[in-house]
Amino acid sequence: MIIVMRKSATKEQTQSILQEIEAKGLKPMPLYGTERTVIAVIGDERILDKQHIASKGGVSNVMLVLPPYKLVSRETKHESTVVKIRDNVTIGGKEICVMAGPCAVENYEFVSAAAKAVKAAGAKILRGGAFKPRTGPYSFQGLGEEGLKILKRVSEEEDIPFVTEVLNTRDLPLVSEYADILQVGARNMQNFNLLEELGKQKRPVLLKRGMSAKIKEWLLAAEYIMANGNPNVILCERGIRTFETEIRSTLALQSVPLIKELSHLPIIVDPSHAAGKPSLIPPMSKASIAAGADGIIVEVHPKPDEALCDGQQALTPEIFKDMMDEMRPVAKAVGKTM
Amino acid sequence: MIIVMRKSATKEQTQSILQEIEAKGLKPMPLYGTERTVIAVIGDERILDKQHIASKGGVSNVMLVLPPYKLVSRETKHESTVVKIRDNVTIGGKEICVMAGPCAVENYEFVSAAAKAVKAAGAKILRGGAFKPRTGPYSFQGLGEEGLKILKRVSEEEDIPFVTEVLNTRDLPLVSEYADILQVGARNMQNFNLLEELGKQKRPVLLKRGMSAKIKEWLLAAEYIMANGNPNVILCERGIRTFETEIRSTLALQSVPLIKELSHLPIIVDPSHAAGKPSLIPPMSKASIAAGADGIIVEVHPKPDEALCDGQQALTPEIFKDMMDEMRPVAKAVGKTM
Amino acid sequence: MIIVMRKSATKEQTQSILQEIEAKGLKPMPLYGTERTVIAVIGDERILDKQHIASKGGVSNVMLVLPPYKLVSRETKHESTVVKIRDNVTIGGKEICVMAGPCAVENYEFVSAAAKAVKAAGAKILRGGAFKPRTGPYSFQGLGEEGLKILKRVSEEEDIPFVTEVLNTRDLPLVSEYADILQVGARNMQNFNLLEELGKQKRPVLLKRGMSAKIKEWLLAAEYIMANGNPNVILCERGIRTFETEIRSTLALQSVPLIKELSHLPIIVDPSHAAGKPSLIPPMSKASIAAGADGIIVEVHPKPDEALCDGQQALTPEIFKDMMDEMRPVAKAVGKTM
Amino acid sequence: MIIVMRKSATKEQTQSILQEIEAKGLKPMPLYGTERTVIAVIGDERILDKQHIASKGGVSNVMLVLPPYKLVSRETKHESTVVKIRDNVTIGGKEICVMAGPCAVENYEFVSAAAKAVKAAGAKILRGGAFKPRTGPYSFQGLGEEGLKILKRVSEEEDIPFVTEVLNTRDLPLVSEYADILQVGARNMQNFNLLEELGKQKRPVLLKRGMSAKIKEWLLAAEYIMANGNPNVILCERGIRTFETEIRSTLALQSVPLIKELSHLPIIVDPSHAAGKPSLIPPMSKASIAAGADGIIVEVHPKPDEALCDGQQALTPEIFKDMMDEMRPVAKAVGKTM
Repeated sequence: MIIVMRKSATKEQTQSILQEIEAKGLKPMPLYGTERTVIAVIGDERILDKQHIASKGGVSNVMLVLPPYKLVSRETKHESTVVKIRDNVTIGGKEICVMAGPCAVENYEFVSAAAKAVKAAGAKILRGGAFKPRTGPYSFQGLGEEGLKILKRVSEEEDIPFVTEVLNTRDLPLVSEYADILQVGARNMQNFNLLEELGKQKRPVLLKRGMSAKIKEWLLAAEYIMANGNPNVILCERGIRTFETEIRSTLALQSVPLIKELSHLPIIVDPSHAAGKPSLIPPMSKASIAAGADGIIVEVHPKPDEALCDGQQALTPEIFKDMMDEMRPVAKAVGKTM
Repeated sequence: MIIVMRKSATKEQTQSILQEIEAKGLKPMPLYGTERTVIAVIGDERILDKQHIASKGGVSNVMLVLPPYKLVSRETKHESTVVKIRDNVTIGGKEICVMAGPCAVENYEFVSAAAKAVKAAGAKILRGGAFKPRTGPYSFQGLGEEGLKILKRVSEEEDIPFVTEVLNTRDLPLVSEYADILQVGARNMQNFNLLEELGKQKRPVLLKRGMSAKIKEWLLAAEYIMANGNPNVILCERGIRTFETEIRSTLALQSVPLIKELSHLPIIVDPSHAAGKPSLIPPMSKASIAAGADGIIVEVHPKPDEALCDGQQALTPEIFKDMMDEMRPVAKAVGKTM
Repeated sequence: MIIVMRKSATKEQTQSILQEIEAKGLKPMPLYGTERTVIAVIGDERILDKQHIASKGGVSNVMLVLPPYKLVSRETKHESTVVKIRDNVTIGGKEICVMAGPCAVENYEFVSAAAKAVKAAGAKILRGGAFKPRTGPYSFQGLGEEGLKILKRVSEEEDIPFVTEVLNTRDLPLVSEYADILQVGARNMQNFNLLEELGKQKRPVLLKRGMSAKIKEWLLAAEYIMANGNPNVILCERGIRTFETEIRSTLALQSVPLIKELSHLPIIVDPSHAAGKPSLIPPMSKASIAAGADGIIVEVHPKPDEALCDGQQALTPEIFKDMMDEMRPVAKAVGKTM
Repeated sequence: MIIVMRKSATKEQTQSILQEIEAKGLKPMPLYGTERTVIAVIGDERILDKQHIASKGGVSNVMLVLPPYKLVSRETKHESTVVKIRDNVTIGGKEICVMAGPCAVENYEFVSAAAKAVKAAGAKILRGGAFKPRTGPYSFQGLGEEGLKILKRVSEEEDIPFVTEVLNTRDLPLVSEYADILQVGARNMQNFNLLEELGKQKRPVLLKRGMSAKIKEWLLAAEYIMANGNPNVILCERGIRTFETEIRSTLALQSVPLIKELSHLPIIVDPSHAAGKPSLIPPMSKASIAAGADGIIVEVHPKPDEALCDGQQALTPEIFKDMMDEMRPVAKAVGKTM
């Protein structure tokens, strides 16, 4: 930690900070410059509270030298984490993992048709929402437990694990009974109670990036889960909110190689929600793999026209199959299999 | 609703949309232009699902003519809502309402000292956090119920109502037993289960704007609460996330007059969290009142240097008193009392 | 400057940086921490190129301690700058300065009518555009020199100085012959050649903030003008681009008190362009004054319905007069005259 | 164009708009709804000024049905534009075009070494800056004409065309005498005079996206060049400004497939400026090609440590060569050659 004092800081103010740092067992190094004093802290600065130090009298600015997270950091664990879902389904290794299915679970027929289609095309995991967060109170909110039962039945019939969203701590015991992977939606990325509870159970967690979350905040959200005992976290880039109005969200693909540098956790990409229309999904899926992503999660619906939710961004099974065929040579070109 | 068809849309696709609109009891008006067909919908378009229509074959673009919210709209209720907390404390009328106190409840002494000071200076409501959402798992998380008890005790001793944050549906029964106003933090603005539960109980709700929430989404979040039965919603502008790095959040004060046009609900401003440093708070508090806000909520701590949370943005009781004295003539200048 | 080395940095890499800093006459202070080495630079770091240092081998991160600008800084010049336009017209002192007039100069009659109306209501400076930057090539682009002549004639008839935009270095000699204040539009805030040329002439410059300019970049743009010899720079906050779609630009009023802390230059606010509709202008004008702005610049048109440019945000002379009457008590409340 | 009237609009106001539309030779279709009147305009709405219509009395909102640009639109010209630089160098066809070289021209030796290296690795065009826009007045500003001469000499010696930035209309005649492609930097994307002049000369133009430009504004900037007579425009995505602080700019790769839908112009990607550090460049270059880009432009410097400008994001010749080798199979995977 680097603490820059104000030009007007008194000797006593500087002294008080030096003492507080020493009291924590760290070594402060004051540097008396021509214009201001700077204090460098030697040792693991993460035991200091940045905001608290910044609020001390005479302090102008506080800068961190180390990242605020530990467990998710590649400095802590060098080798990449591979999350195992079933014996033949893993995320984070050499094999690209594709998750696909309808946005919301509407009925058994649609889910079953979607599952058959996506599995045949090479998807490894089925996706589908039983509990849906909707921005307005007058929209379709999902089937709830009924939806979980449909997903479970199809999952067993087609022998494909499934991922579904959990909205709050109340629903968590129920959802974790059914699902293979628990998804945290973008709006819940900083629902800290939910993150804690997810850390205390065993299911792998798919943690979507918040709509306006910095990469550091996203990794801190993953740290919450890991710090509570669950090492199986999969990150998911799904686009951030910017000034652009032509596209729903700006898919920030640089996060893929950057996360790979900063963290050992696997990262996949959701090109469907960011696009808001189907034509952008195949090129962005290929770009995600080329950028180094461990997989993608996309919406596929047997009849997008009749979907109750987000139909305008769902791929038909035919287009999904073509996209998978186009992705394979890209995966191979970057040394992955699919 | 205005539906713009693609240049390539077929007659059948257009026909299918006309039928779907009529089936809902609305009147579609197709306009066959030189370049494309446009369908205008006559009637209350809010019973149509925009995303569903947009996903129909042949549709290029869907534009809403009416806002997606109803109960919060000034078109629905012309006179401004005045939320009554106690006989002599209201929000939304001619009297400016100032809420002040420490960020987090740390101990009885600090809360009591803060309450005495802010009440003496003219604040009407005490603020303080018992449950704190923190971005990292290693920071101080609040005292929990112990904090609520301290707030309640001080509230009774000093005869001042208090507002405190509720983080999730699990804590809601507990917090609503103690607090006069329940605060929804920025990160929870789209925690829809929490909004629903807040709608089903009686305490007034202070709804902070999400860090990257559009005004429309913020009003829809308020609609969630009202649609579940609670009309006592107070909006709170607290700054949005932008590219600026010199300031913590960009206080978007235009939202004050805009909300006054769009909605009948009261709106206050939180200049403390947006600033991240004390010197910006007095000028922005005066600006908020001049822009038409019904009040402000600010952090005041007897000893900011020793605060466990957000001390660097807390005002001392002395600076708070001076600020209140400076705010009074501004309130008077815009026809309010304080 | 604080230079944080990578964990993997070699002794030679650190040595090479120490030598480069010493060669510049500054004193490097290496701090050998438990996890990495940090080098603090004692002396005026602004003679070092941050990007160059950051590109040296073994460097992880470079942080500046001092702001990158000097001449515009309040640390360099403590007292506030007051820009004098004419004997009785100044900007930056106790008197609020209001600039008003039509967006574009369309004809003599409209400009004359606008000038009479705004002067009668208390405006000190007439505004009007002769050269208009338009986002599309098919829109009205302004009258050019003909427009400057109209502004000059009206300015003399009504005895009111005027401000107008200069788009490029080519037009600068012409525009500076006519205008009292030269405006740099938001799109030109980083047109560095233009800034240099404006620094080499004598007319005061009104420097609008770029649509996505950080405060630091805005002050650096002002530094360009001052570094070339012209101390008469007036800053103008006009809103920044964010994700919000309900409002044209987000008026970032915190910049007013922040600029007052960082710089000695005067700052005014343009609430018209940021609003995009007239109803937000009076409340935001009052808020600007309450936040400490030295003035405002607003669009007033005798017949907004017939305006060729931006009519939808222009005030009528009647509404402008009412607004001025409402602003006076606010100015008085913050110790200003108007 | 769809014009939504206010609820309070009078019959006369509606009538006045109908007449104005008819006077332009278009057909207005008024729709009298239960809540408000909507006017749809049949015909090419681009001859109407959206802002002017929006400013008419009684108008609530105006929505465009057609995009505001014509010449750049794929609806106007179906086949993709291929810009020819030399007989064997084209952009926009099946062959990926890589442009590479140092950020700024510093001396003959560095440019010559860079040119030899990038050509050997497969680059088709040399890049280098002679005139540099710098955010602060105290940084290295480029060698000017001397730099152009060095680029020209190296270009002839190594038989490779070069692209360089032109900052303003004053320098345009000089730069266009030397360069094969004229680059418009992000800060100049809306320098409309420069765009006009570039439209009136013959050299191909590389138009970088503005840091906060919407896709629509970027295409309108290209329209400026085409409307003045020059059809050879190459678009360049270089990242947009967002709230993220870990990365310099957010590379918005969705713009690649979206531009391909909306326009016939070629589009390349600049991963160097967006990254701000070398490690992100190879994965994002591969992702750009996978997303459908026609090429990339990257910074390569023989000795990044000694670069006067942006050295920290330049690739060494060795890393560039490796990257090119990794890009080839990705290009092949998406049906391109390289």
